Amino acid sequence: MPISTIAFDADDTLWENEQIFHLTEQRFRELIASHTEIEDLGQSLLETERKNLRYYGYGIKGFTLSMIETAIEVTGGTIPARDIQEIIRAGREMRDHPASPFPPVEQVLKSLADDYRLLVITKGDLFDQERKIAQSGLGDYFDGVEIVSEKTAETYHRIFDQYGDGPSRSLMVGNSLKSDILPALEAGAYGVHIPHTLTWAMEQAKEPLDHEKFRQLQSMDELPELLSKLKK
Amino acid sequence: MPISTIAFDADDTLWENEQIFHLTEQRFRELIASHTEIEDLGQSLLETERKNLRYYGYGIKGFTLSMIETAIEVTGGTIPARDIQEIIRAGREMRDHPASPFPPVEQVLKSLADDYRLLVITKGDLFDQERKIAQSGLGDYFDGVEIVSEKTAETYHRIFDQYGDGPSRSLMVGNSLKSDILPALEAGAYGVHIPHTLTWAMEQAKEPLDHEKFRQLQSMDELPELLSKLKK
Repeated sequence: MPISTIAFDADDTLWENEQIFHLTEQRFRELIASHTEIEDLGQSLLETERKNLRYYGYGIKGFTLSMIETAIEVTGGTIPARDIQEIIRAGREMRDHPASPFPPVEQVLKSLADDYRLLVITKGDLFDQERKIAQSGLGDYFDGVEIVSEKTAETYHRIFDQYGDGPSRSLMVGNSLKSDILPALEAGAYGVHIPHTLTWAMEQAKEPLDHEKFRQLQSMDELPELLSKLKK
Repeated sequence: MPISTIAFDADDTLWENEQIFHLTEQRFRELIASHTEIEDLGQSLLETERKNLRYYGYGIKGFTLSMIETAIEVTGGTIPARDIQEIIRAGREMRDHPASPFPPVEQVLKSLADDYRLLVITKGDLFDQERKIAQSGLGDYFDGVEIVSEKTAETYHRIFDQYGDGPSRSLMVGNSLKSDILPALEAGAYGVHIPHTLTWAMEQAKEPLDHEKFRQLQSMDELPELLSKLKK
């Protein structure tokens, strides 16, 4: 049976995201460096984020709280309140960043919209993601937008059943092997990996090169060609 | 046409919520009181929350960030970092609070489940709300759970169309006139208000006493009787 439904991850697949976290983390490190002897602040922050995942989930607010907590910890509580305010400000500015689609994205969505059901399946903060989808101007191309707290095989099963014709006739496109590709393959869908230059340490995983439904593309503009090959 | 779909707000309708915010705010005020001359700390916090709504939306993480920001502001930046850590801890403990359904809730859901499509429509943080629904043990009674960033007439229209037979055959139950009742009535559904002893200042509104589809109950256990009256 041919593919009827294509789902896209949002952050770092449709538009830039990790870079904004990366730049904010850089600002955070510069702010804290003079108050601590600890050198690998990125590692300290990552450990706090990992520990806090079960409290905060994904998104800017949890990241901001983890930056504050790390700042207090690595400075032994000596960080001045005005620097904490600066961290809050940096977190808020992340939110002002527009979600600008990567160059080929809109053209590709337009070319697929008549022939396929198109979905967004994204993890993260409801409030952040709704804002980005609205800002991106891409909202009208999608038949459904699902913002979920975790991406498991069960998540993909449920969504492809609900909006489409089940996982076997669906294809997931994303930059994260761990969240977008492996669980989609496990559910029985195609998994099309489009790597992004930056990948958050918690999203890294091994490429399932032997899986018959795994594909890798350099850029979104190769997607229509892949789809016509899969039709044959 | 008879009512086929009943949707419930979650926080302060199915289980206690505002009280947990209230207790945390009390702890916050005690923590800050010795560092500032400002007396009405609750008012200062509310102003910060109002200003931050467009950045943070609803939920515990945004509330925690607003407490930190207020603490820094009202103390002129003199609050020690360890007190900020204490605020972060208080925010995290909110999340450990179990979502225990109000006494009549489960019995009422059980009695309605065979005859109506039951939904949850709740505002707030995706991560918080999913946890609470899972913890509450009520998940299986519902045919759909919609976690939304704002509750407008359009929100209710979309959800009652998607899961039910449109707003005219639907009924919304909730404690907030502003979020649960007024927009549901505007969409064309029944709005059944069950007041809660505590209502967040930002959720207050006037009762639409003249509206033919507005009803008010003292407790959830009066809902089955109301429904049998509406059938006639």
